[in-house]
Amino acid sequence: MKFLAFFGHINIDVKISVPRLPMREESVGVKNVSNEFAGTAGNFAFVAASLGLSFDLYSKVGSLTHNDYINELRRRKINIDHVEIENSMGPICYIPTDGNEQVAYMYQGPMDSWRPSLSFDYNYKYVHLGTGPSDEYQKIAANNEKSRIVFDPGQEIWYLYNKDKIIDIMSRSYISMFNKNEFNYLKSMTGLSEHELNNLSDYIIVTMGSDGASVFHKNNEFHVPAVKSDFIYDTIGAGDSFRAGFYFGIYNNYSINDSVLIGNIVASIAIRRRIIEFNENRNNIIKMFNNMKLKQRV
Amino acid sequence: MKFLAFFGHINIDVKISVPRLPMREESVGVKNVSNEFAGTAGNFAFVAASLGLSFDLYSKVGSLTHNDYINELRRRKINIDHVEIENSMGPICYIPTDGNEQVAYMYQGPMDSWRPSLSFDYNYKYVHLGTGPSDEYQKIAANNEKSRIVFDPGQEIWYLYNKDKIIDIMSRSYISMFNKNEFNYLKSMTGLSEHELNNLSDYIIVTMGSDGASVFHKNNEFHVPAVKSDFIYDTIGAGDSFRAGFYFGIYNNYSINDSVLIGNIVASIAIRRRIIEFNENRNNIIKMFNNMKLKQRV
Repeated sequence: MKFLAFFGHINIDVKISVPRLPMREESVGVKNVSNEFAGTAGNFAFVAASLGLSFDLYSKVGSLTHNDYINELRRRKINIDHVEIENSMGPICYIPTDGNEQVAYMYQGPMDSWRPSLSFDYNYKYVHLGTGPSDEYQKIAANNEKSRIVFDPGQEIWYLYNKDKIIDIMSRSYISMFNKNEFNYLKSMTGLSEHELNNLSDYIIVTMGSDGASVFHKNNEFHVPAVKSDFIYDTIGAGDSFRAGFYFGIYNNYSINDSVLIGNIVASIAIRRRIIEFNENRNNIIKMFNNMKLKQRV
Repeated sequence: MKFLAFFGHINIDVKISVPRLPMREESVGVKNVSNEFAGTAGNFAFVAASLGLSFDLYSKVGSLTHNDYINELRRRKINIDHVEIENSMGPICYIPTDGNEQVAYMYQGPMDSWRPSLSFDYNYKYVHLGTGPSDEYQKIAANNEKSRIVFDPGQEIWYLYNKDKIIDIMSRSYISMFNKNEFNYLKSMTGLSEHELNNLSDYIIVTMGSDGASVFHKNNEFHVPAVKSDFIYDTIGAGDSFRAGFYFGIYNNYSINDSVLIGNIVASIAIRRRIIEFNENRNNIIKMFNNMKLKQRV
């Protein structure tokens, strides 16, 4: 049985650095352009592979934009047998930024026509349904009885899900994951109480940035502290590296609560440089985890 | 002796179609992304090559973005021996548009470090100095005694030239070309009268869109009518195709005034489709020219 199928975006972020964002009908000179290998599944893959985790990526990309990205994933021996590649562009996000404010132009490209399914030939212990097509994710959650479903819609909760769909998927999921804003939106969108929501999945994990994370299970809330980082390069991708650390914990037989702490540790390391440059020794992470547990006991 | 060296941008325009332009800190979904082969030198090359004109392109591009563009120029047998190719990105312009308004993010990339010169081995009848590095263009204009210099700074007149530089280059040029806005700016920037400016170059050509063009020579102004187009796809690139038609006229021994009319004819055809799809029979253009001349005489 394989450990994990991870569904999400393999996205290219085109960061366009300008002295200031232009007004309409205006032209500005660009100081720098950088193509970043990003997306929920891509970010996860770089960190998780660096931690030695074994998983299959599920996504769809266009070869006109993603050849280098695909080659980099292959070079790192990340399994992309289930990443569909078509002769087109995207997904790609153009992000003009003046270092202070930014705007984002998100082109889904191949993701718009992605219709993933999970063959019965595949046996995964965990199936992580991240960003991507909600209809197909709903079917995968409904038809899969061998795997533990982890539902993690991210910002797409705002526009790809309605109350019925989200309640259906959550009730079929072992774990549902949200950040604080998404969880608050979920409460107002469904009209359900925290208590009612918590009974839908076995575990609900709500990440809260520098406030740590909460794990809801059987109507108990367990708080997991955040791990402070002495230096922050970029918090984009922090959530994806949290997930890599979380699965690293689960894979190594830590409890859900402890795995969330390991996720926080990994995220605190990942935000110190570009996600693609994550390269932390596994033993160090375990060591940091043990130290934090010791302190909690004192 | 070769006919023409054409200096300018070989630019990729990334057109990003959105339902509406975003506010700061906002993310919008993109309907469509298209990479257009553009730039002053690139647009000129497609139209001029289609008209059978022989010329050498001078520019600088990055292979990370321009491989397909370079291949397309080669496929059309356009001489790019003098196009420097480095392992980088650009020049590239990101243009988010809602179909009504647009903003432009221009990244010069390799053009920022382009230091072109003209070897004495090369003998050109015309050297066209379009968009590009003004210092080097000034040197080329100063050191070249074999060729007729055509100075054509385009919108870069606003930020790459000061009064001394522009007067120096214009006084060494056989022809200087501007559109109406650029010419008005030139007058206010230099503080010179139209009369004084006209004496700097042998010929000054001022294009005025649907108002046609003016040719100033020895203190005479000759007006060349515009040629109406029954359908307009996109007027971007109209000026570059005008230049292709103009040199097509010069190459075929038409006068400057007549070549400007041929330029107007070619521009009126070019704006009916994408510049890269320009494909008009040379004889038709001569026929249109003859018809217009006949009418003028009536």
